[in-house]
Amino acid sequence: MTGRPATVTVLGLGGMGSALARAFLAAGHTVTVWNRTPARAEPLAERGAVAAATVEEAVTASELIVVCVVDYPASDAFLHPVADALRGRTLVNLTSDTPERAAAAAAWAAGHGIAYLDGAIMVPIPVIGGPGGFVIYSGSPQAYETHAPTLAALGGKGRYLGEDPAGAALYDLAMLGFFYSSMAGLMYAFALAGTNGDRAVDFVPYAAEMVHIMPDLIAGAAEEIDARHYPGDLGDLAMESVGIGHIVEAGRARGLDTGVLDAVKALTDRAVTEGHGGDGFARVLELLKR
Amino acid sequence: MTGRPATVTVLGLGGMGSALARAFLAAGHTVTVWNRTPARAEPLAERGAVAAATVEEAVTASELIVVCVVDYPASDAFLHPVADALRGRTLVNLTSDTPERAAAAAAWAAGHGIAYLDGAIMVPIPVIGGPGGFVIYSGSPQAYETHAPTLAALGGKGRYLGEDPAGAALYDLAMLGFFYSSMAGLMYAFALAGTNGDRAVDFVPYAAEMVHIMPDLIAGAAEEIDARHYPGDLGDLAMESVGIGHIVEAGRARGLDTGVLDAVKALTDRAVTEGHGGDGFARVLELLKR
Repeated sequence: MTGRPATVTVLGLGGMGSALARAFLAAGHTVTVWNRTPARAEPLAERGAVAAATVEEAVTASELIVVCVVDYPASDAFLHPVADALRGRTLVNLTSDTPERAAAAAAWAAGHGIAYLDGAIMVPIPVIGGPGGFVIYSGSPQAYETHAPTLAALGGKGRYLGEDPAGAALYDLAMLGFFYSSMAGLMYAFALAGTNGDRAVDFVPYAAEMVHIMPDLIAGAAEEIDARHYPGDLGDLAMESVGIGHIVEAGRARGLDTGVLDAVKALTDRAVTEGHGGDGFARVLELLKR
Repeated sequence: MTGRPATVTVLGLGGMGSALARAFLAAGHTVTVWNRTPARAEPLAERGAVAAATVEEAVTASELIVVCVVDYPASDAFLHPVADALRGRTLVNLTSDTPERAAAAAAWAAGHGIAYLDGAIMVPIPVIGGPGGFVIYSGSPQAYETHAPTLAALGGKGRYLGEDPAGAALYDLAMLGFFYSSMAGLMYAFALAGTNGDRAVDFVPYAAEMVHIMPDLIAGAAEEIDARHYPGDLGDLAMESVGIGHIVEAGRARGLDTGVLDAVKALTDRAVTEGHGGDGFARVLELLKR
């Protein structure tokens, strides 16, 4: 049990929405659920959730309304018609979308007397509700203060980023930009390593070594970025650009799609062309900002 | 001290080559060094290394010759003229380059009676010589068996990949493909998160969360790849492609260079277009192989 027993409604019961509802149920809250296609509510009803017949019924059942769907046009479509029912309640939209649409959703909520938090879920479905469950929030500080004990049911790593409702969406997309670039690079790595006939599982310890060195590199890069000083004494862009060329060359020789690595190479090549070959990798950040 | 005292020559004294020489010295070996520009040998001579005046003098001083320069054309340029001096000794080329050039170097060595190991250094300079020092080798199994105790001076994580001399270079480039894609994505993430005025250091814990989830995802992806079965029940490419679109959209709205994320999006979009929208991310590996 996290916090006092509360009433929580979950709108949108895809894989993630269903996990949110299960986490609130597991924490002992009174949970009402709704989904555009009602069948997805059934497994949750079996666990003790109330399956509402309409969005309005779902909204009026609870003090805290949590939404998780594919994007804001999808959530707007069912939330806007029930604005009056939402008035005086707290709406937490955990849908992943752009900061602009998060800001627009917050403005709409403010215009209808709805306390609003925007949020983003940063972990895969199985991690929700556990100690590693990581959800970020931004928007109304009062709403966060009131409902943080209930939202704690979603996982051990909830973080409030501040009053700007677009803040969580911005950090969400920044984190995902890092994540998906890493995942695309990982798939290229598996493809390249696999050209010698090895199984992917053979390459796992090697890929994992690259993960182990990241935390120190992230912290070091942040210091360089904040200081706008990018020393290349531990490896410079001129050398790294040659190395990235080898990665592309080896992939091409084996018939691989090198699109992502081509883009990485274009970036480091530009850094070298513009005279930053002696700087460290983090110097490319400055090039991204134009 | 690792292994019996040995004689080791290090050719090429850039940042990494100098670190290798220091690690051999620290382990108690007799170390001879040479660099195209002799000034770089001086700090190592102060630590007890012998600074050779010529490559031939450097090569004949030791049973084990370790090379680390920018690429194979650079190492070929000074090794080929001393082929006779190298005969009967073991050459370990830790230069990072393509598998093709590693194989060519191995063939040249075999043709001159030189025992050959190709290798790659997978950690930043400060990690060399410590417990995290990670160096991979491939090539002559006898040469590895003989010199592994000496090479252990470079770090606690030496690994022999097998007899194919190109194997280390292939894994090197695969690991680096993952690494540089991650680093490019990290810089985009810092740039995007920074558009709200936050310092980069504020974003570090969030970037670190993405690193924490990688080991499980790497292991899971490898299983899917080996099984050629990519279930999308915990997140599918159709949804991920929309999310990657948001990352690009938010970056563009803030004037960022979205080149790397554009390439990631092109890949997931192609997966969706080709009918794999319901599969998990690892499905893109199959698309890379064409």
